[in-house]
Amino acid sequence: MEATEILSHEPLIDPILSELAEDNPVLTEATQAAILELPSEDVALLLESLPGEPRLKVWALISAEERGDVLFEMHDDARRHLINDMEESDLRSMAARLSPQELVELNELIPPKLYSRRLKLMSLKEQTAVNTAMRFEDDQVGRNIDSDFISISEGLTSQQVMRLLRQWEFPSHTDLLCLVNEEGLYAGSVQLTDLFNAHPQQQIKDLKMEDDPAVRADMQMSEIADLSYQNHHAMMPVVDEADHLLGRITSQDILGWVQTEAENQLLQQAGLSEDEDLFAPVKRSAKRRAVWLGINLCTALLASWTIGLFEATLEQVVALAILMPIVASMGGIAGSQTLTLAIRGLALGNLSSSNAKIMFQKEILVGLLNGIVWSLVIGIMAGFWFSQPAIGFVIGAAILVNLIFAAMSGVIIPLVLDKFKIDPALSGAVILTTVTDVIGFFAFLGLGSLFLV
Amino acid sequence: MEATEILSHEPLIDPILSELAEDNPVLTEATQAAILELPSEDVALLLESLPGEPRLKVWALISAEERGDVLFEMHDDARRHLINDMEESDLRSMAARLSPQELVELNELIPPKLYSRRLKLMSLKEQTAVNTAMRFEDDQVGRNIDSDFISISEGLTSQQVMRLLRQWEFPSHTDLLCLVNEEGLYAGSVQLTDLFNAHPQQQIKDLKMEDDPAVRADMQMSEIADLSYQNHHAMMPVVDEADHLLGRITSQDILGWVQTEAENQLLQQAGLSEDEDLFAPVKRSAKRRAVWLGINLCTALLASWTIGLFEATLEQVVALAILMPIVASMGGIAGSQTLTLAIRGLALGNLSSSNAKIMFQKEILVGLLNGIVWSLVIGIMAGFWFSQPAIGFVIGAAILVNLIFAAMSGVIIPLVLDKFKIDPALSGAVILTTVTDVIGFFAFLGLGSLFLV
Repeated sequence: MEATEILSHEPLIDPILSELAEDNPVLTEATQAAILELPSEDVALLLESLPGEPRLKVWALISAEERGDVLFEMHDDARRHLINDMEESDLRSMAARLSPQELVELNELIPPKLYSRRLKLMSLKEQTAVNTAMRFEDDQVGRNIDSDFISISEGLTSQQVMRLLRQWEFPSHTDLLCLVNEEGLYAGSVQLTDLFNAHPQQQIKDLKMEDDPAVRADMQMSEIADLSYQNHHAMMPVVDEADHLLGRITSQDILGWVQTEAENQLLQQAGLSEDEDLFAPVKRSAKRRAVWLGINLCTALLASWTIGLFEATLEQVVALAILMPIVASMGGIAGSQTLTLAIRGLALGNLSSSNAKIMFQKEILVGLLNGIVWSLVIGIMAGFWFSQPAIGFVIGAAILVNLIFAAMSGVIIPLVLDKFKIDPALSGAVILTTVTDVIGFFAFLGLGSLFLV
Repeated sequence: MEATEILSHEPLIDPILSELAEDNPVLTEATQAAILELPSEDVALLLESLPGEPRLKVWALISAEERGDVLFEMHDDARRHLINDMEESDLRSMAARLSPQELVELNELIPPKLYSRRLKLMSLKEQTAVNTAMRFEDDQVGRNIDSDFISISEGLTSQQVMRLLRQWEFPSHTDLLCLVNEEGLYAGSVQLTDLFNAHPQQQIKDLKMEDDPAVRADMQMSEIADLSYQNHHAMMPVVDEADHLLGRITSQDILGWVQTEAENQLLQQAGLSEDEDLFAPVKRSAKRRAVWLGINLCTALLASWTIGLFEATLEQVVALAILMPIVASMGGIAGSQTLTLAIRGLALGNLSSSNAKIMFQKEILVGLLNGIVWSLVIGIMAGFWFSQPAIGFVIGAAILVNLIFAAMSGVIIPLVLDKFKIDPALSGAVILTTVTDVIGFFAFLGLGSLFLV
């Protein structure tokens, strides 16, 4: 017996690219077979690992049945690339096979005509599932629910339930049965494992869990992730405000969501779209990134403008120009350390208006301590470098000032952004470095004008 | 029937801090009761949301039984703070109640004497669990397994298994039964739900899943996260190289790990320890952060040194000093966009040596396009600002050069770091901005010396 073998897309990238780079660009049968053996998650990764032409060649191998599964796992840009290139008939035959969850996920990418045609051909239960999901936003639980679960009338005995269950297929991740009352409303959940230990004549509703695991469909996915970690179940029933049972959310769905969110946060910090394709067309990539460059240009201009105020000083003391990057860099680094701690504190709920003052005081003291240490180090170094003790004093003082302001900004900026419902993880760093650049240059060149000219 | 009510630690921070700030610092009974109602995950968050004294006051309320659960959910720094403050007798009575998983997690924080005493008092099965886990590293599956699972001899019929199961308590997240053969080795898994549909006389081994969900204990947690997402089970059996069944890992354990990893990555990027406490003592915080400031000082010195090469030029053309931050900033931003994409590509397995060349070419073209656009914008702006077209030309050319080099560095740096098994998410950004600073200043001031002096 072997432990699970990891089928992976990575070893296939190289053969595909080299086979398709030859004069007669076709994939060998061995490569084709290997591609078709991959689970759809890996086909998705493989497609995203390939540039334009090879990507389309591999896509052509995938059956209409599997295409929906594969697209479901991909990022929007790469999805669009494949869908835009599909023939009308291929698109139609793929759309006709989409599951409710896939139809919801791909709704914006599929022609409205195909969307409604697919919807009409679904069972009533599936139609309801799609329409329910579409009532919610992407980051709400309701949008991510799965209608493949077992609900049971609460009037049955455990023996009757066992008999029913024997006739049904169990969806994966089932560890709970959802009960509904006579009015068809959600009435609680029973652990599948409690059924085993129950007396045959026991009423199923007597087996109800005390801590009801149900969640509201209008909750945010981020709230749910913590709950799922705490309640130890493989799934949670999802209800609306009137206690209608809409579906369930599995710990697998939540895991996928958490992983994607973590990835997105890193991309967004660099001003990238979360759907950015590694091999997107050059023009489109350039256009998107230009926006972020433009925003950052404005902040750099502010720094330059600050420096410009001290043109006359710089003309006389060129050493100041040489040392400027050190002042800006130390402030930026120290500030971003405080900022990152504050952002984590806000995300975990460790930081709130009640204890912000305590963190603020602590961070100022940390800034003061590191400010003293590094202003001495850098001050002495700069004094010797330019053989002029006054320069050492000026840069030392500027660094001390900048590190203290950096600490204050690192706490205040994320709290203010959070108050205005702006995610501090996105814009916090840009605002912070603008502040530390401007304050750093102002302090450094201002002190330079006073003491060195 | 109500949907799950979210008990949270956040509303408690404020009353605790204000009640303990009074002349007679005691917690009201209402507050104490609210604290004791929280699940241990939230008590952990609450403790981490409180500074020194209030934290210890709340900790004193927690029973010896619950303390292990709470510490298990906390970060190392805050754990240490609480443990260091505990009386010998309290520590002993807490240690005596630790579960195997808690003992493993807290092993470095607990006196060796208490560790071995607790271990000796465990059942043989629990002792094995602890000793097994201790054979592995923190980020290996073996360290994170849970020994609370059901294993069944493969020689039984489904009826016999059902009878056995009725007598046992099911651990949470159970959707699989693990089979062991006559030699006691792992022999495959059976879905609990398949048992329902089986004939009573059917051999349990005939129900074995085709895709064996077992994983090896020496695998990395990061590999497992993807597998768990793909295989749709609430748990995976864990085996060693000789197919001994060591335990299982649940999707809940994996979710917790993924969330922590995402959080850690953000902290590490800012040079912070993943265990950093929001209210750590000032001195310790300052000391730790000083290291990262020191590293960044070295890179800033490199930038200053580059500028210093052009001291004579700067003396004559002070406009260059004013515009320097723009060149550095644009290069750093453009480079970090490419870097972030490459790091995500490496993490997902989308980027490998096979397709790196294609990404490299694409990124250079993106850099070229944005280089042309922004060098024109900035060049014209700077030309007007200083009423000197040549300055516009010099900064424009420097930005074009820097954006192209930034794109190249953004691909090459993470690939090289990855080759040397260094996580590019940690040091990539520092190296990249050093490169873009040095190249940007060199190009800008070098061209300035040629054309403006």
